Amino acid sequence: MSESGSLAPRRATAEMVARRANVSRVAVSRAFNPHTSLKPEKRALILKVAQELNYTPDRAARALVSGRSHLVGIIVPDVCSHWESQEIDALTTALQNEGFATLLFKTRTDYSMDERLLAYMRGFNPDSVIAFVENVKPTTLARVLDRAVPIYIHYARPGEEAPPPADGPLFDRLNVLQRTGVEQAVALLQGYGVKRIAYVSGVAKSRANVAREAMLREVLADRGMAPPIVAPGDFSYDKAYAATIDLFRIGKGVDAIFAANDVGAFGAIDALRHELVLRVPEDVKVVGFDDIAQSHWKSYNLTTVKFDLNERVRALVRLILRRLADPTAPSLQETLQTSLVVRGTVG
Amino acid sequence: MSESGSLAPRRATAEMVARRANVSRVAVSRAFNPHTSLKPEKRALILKVAQELNYTPDRAARALVSGRSHLVGIIVPDVCSHWESQEIDALTTALQNEGFATLLFKTRTDYSMDERLLAYMRGFNPDSVIAFVENVKPTTLARVLDRAVPIYIHYARPGEEAPPPADGPLFDRLNVLQRTGVEQAVALLQGYGVKRIAYVSGVAKSRANVAREAMLREVLADRGMAPPIVAPGDFSYDKAYAATIDLFRIGKGVDAIFAANDVGAFGAIDALRHELVLRVPEDVKVVGFDDIAQSHWKSYNLTTVKFDLNERVRALVRLILRRLADPTAPSLQETLQTSLVVRGTVG
Repeated sequence: MSESGSLAPRRATAEMVARRANVSRVAVSRAFNPHTSLKPEKRALILKVAQELNYTPDRAARALVSGRSHLVGIIVPDVCSHWESQEIDALTTALQNEGFATLLFKTRTDYSMDERLLAYMRGFNPDSVIAFVENVKPTTLARVLDRAVPIYIHYARPGEEAPPPADGPLFDRLNVLQRTGVEQAVALLQGYGVKRIAYVSGVAKSRANVAREAMLREVLADRGMAPPIVAPGDFSYDKAYAATIDLFRIGKGVDAIFAANDVGAFGAIDALRHELVLRVPEDVKVVGFDDIAQSHWKSYNLTTVKFDLNERVRALVRLILRRLADPTAPSLQETLQTSLVVRGTVG
Repeated sequence: MSESGSLAPRRATAEMVARRANVSRVAVSRAFNPHTSLKPEKRALILKVAQELNYTPDRAARALVSGRSHLVGIIVPDVCSHWESQEIDALTTALQNEGFATLLFKTRTDYSMDERLLAYMRGFNPDSVIAFVENVKPTTLARVLDRAVPIYIHYARPGEEAPPPADGPLFDRLNVLQRTGVEQAVALLQGYGVKRIAYVSGVAKSRANVAREAMLREVLADRGMAPPIVAPGDFSYDKAYAATIDLFRIGKGVDAIFAANDVGAFGAIDALRHELVLRVPEDVKVVGFDDIAQSHWKSYNLTTVKFDLNERVRALVRLILRRLADPTAPSLQETLQTSLVVRGTVG
C-alpha cells in the first residue's frame, strides 16, 4: 500500500469561508462545533457557504493544534453480543450529538488483550476510552493512554461500592448497583414457593458475572434460602442450553433458573421446553439479566433484571464531558440502579 | 470545554526508539505497520523498546504526512439491528487485522441523512467509507469525501446486475445476488404444496427490501405461481408480528410467509403460534432472510436465505485494499451469492 496523499484535491480553508460569508474566522470554527452558541441564521449561512466551497475542518490538523481528537474509543470483547450492540448503538447516537465519533476496538474473544491493539488505540489519541472489558487493567490503560482517562463499568460485589483508592492510576467509574434488582427477583421467586435455584453463569472471568453470582448468593442467604446451584455458562445461548440440560439430566433439577444474562435465559427456556419438555413458568421459573430488546418477544416474554439503557448512556456521556472539563479532577463516579421487569416466565 | 492539550506528557519519538533499539528509523515505522515484512525478532525488540519508552506513532501527525487516517467510516441506520451488528463486529475484527479502525456514523432512524453528519464524517478524513444505507447517494458522498471512494452494498433487482455507468461519480460495489437463495426457498415451498405466499416486507425505502420483493415476484412468476400477498413490515419483530395477524384476521391467510429478514420471520412465527394458534410448519411455513446467529435458537429454528457473513466481510476488506492500492481505478466490484439454509420452519 503506497502512502501517497497527492490525489486529494486542495481543501478550501476556513479563511476562504469566512471571507465569502463575511464573518470572522472564529465564527467559522464555532459553526462546526455543536457546543458553541451561534445565531442559527449565522450558523446556517456559514454551513451553506462551507458546502459551496467544499470546506470542512480537518480534524487531524485540528487535533494537533487543540490536543482533541473528538474520538471516543470503546473496548469491547464482542460487538454483536446483544447487550453491547444495543449499548454501542445508543452511545454512538448520544456521542454524535455531542460532537464525538466512536472508535471500536475489539479484544480477542477469550477476553485477552493484544499489546499491539493498545499501542494502536493510543495512536488515534482518543479523548476518552470506555472499557467494556475487565481484563484491561487501569494500570495498563494509564500507561498506554496519553490523555484519556479511562472509564470502567464497575459491577460492585457485596460491600464493594466504595470509590477506588486515590493512590492508584486515575480512572472514572460507572457503578452498577445490582442488589435492588436481584432482591426483587428473589422475593418474587420466594413468593411463588421456589426452593431450589440454579445460577446459569456468564464467562467465569467476567466481573459482571462474579458480582452477579455473589449478589445472588448474599440475597439468598439474607432471606434464609439455600445457596444457588451453579451451572457454568459463558453468556451464550448454546452454553446455557447445554448447562440447563445437565442440571436436570445429571443433577436433580431446580424450581427456578437465574441466568447471568437474557441470552442465557433464552437458552435455558428453550432447553426446558424443547429438550426436557418442562413448562415455563409452571414447572420451572426463569429470570434473566439486562432486559435486551428481544426479552419481550412472545417465545420468551422474559422476567428480567433491567439496566436502563438510556440512563446508562447518559451517565457515560456525563462522565466523558465532566472529565474533559476537568482533566485533573480525582476519580469521577456515576451510579446506576437495577430493577425487576416482570413478564411471563415467573408466576 | 477547554481545548488545552498541555497536560499530555511529552511523547517519545521514533528516533529515540531507533537509537535505543539500534535499528533504523524506517524499521521503527515498519514495526507498527502490520503490512510490512520485518523479522519477527526485530519487530518484537522494537515493540518492546517502544513500550519501555512509552512510544507509539501518532496517527494524527502521520495522517497529515501520509494522507492516510487508517480509519474506515461505516454509515449505518441502526447498529443494534441484528444483521448489522454481527456484520460490524466481524468487519471490525477483519479491519483491525489490516491496521484500520472502524468509525461509526449513524443516520437518523427514518433513514434520512443530516448534512452536518456528512461534514463531520469528512472531518475525520477516512480512508474508506462503507454505506450500509441507501439514502446517501454516491453523488452526495462524492461531493463530501476528499479521498475515500465509497463502497455500496448493491442488492440487484432482476436484470440490474450490470456494473454502474462509468460517467457517474466513482464508487465501488459489493453486489449481493439474491436470486439463487430465493429460488431454492420457493422450490422447497412449492415441493411442499404451498399455493399462497405472503411477503412480510422490510422498510419500504430500503433497496434490499425492494430487490428482495422483486426477486420473489419474478421467481414465483417463473415457476407459474401466484404473486405474493404483501404484508407491510419494517424489518422489526413487532411490525412483522402485527402484519402477520392482519394477514389472517383481515385477509384470508396464507400457506407460507417469506419475511424480508430473520427478525421479521421471528415476529411472524410468534404471531402464528401465540396469537393465531397455528402450527409452524404444519399449518404455515416460514422462511427468513440473513441467517443471523439467533436463527438456530430452538424457539425459531428458522429456514432462511443465507448471506455468508465471513465471505461478505472478506469481500468488503478486499474492496478497501484494492481501492487504496489503486485510487484512480474505475469502479471496483465484488460479488456475493446467497443460498438456502434448511431448518425446521418448512417441511
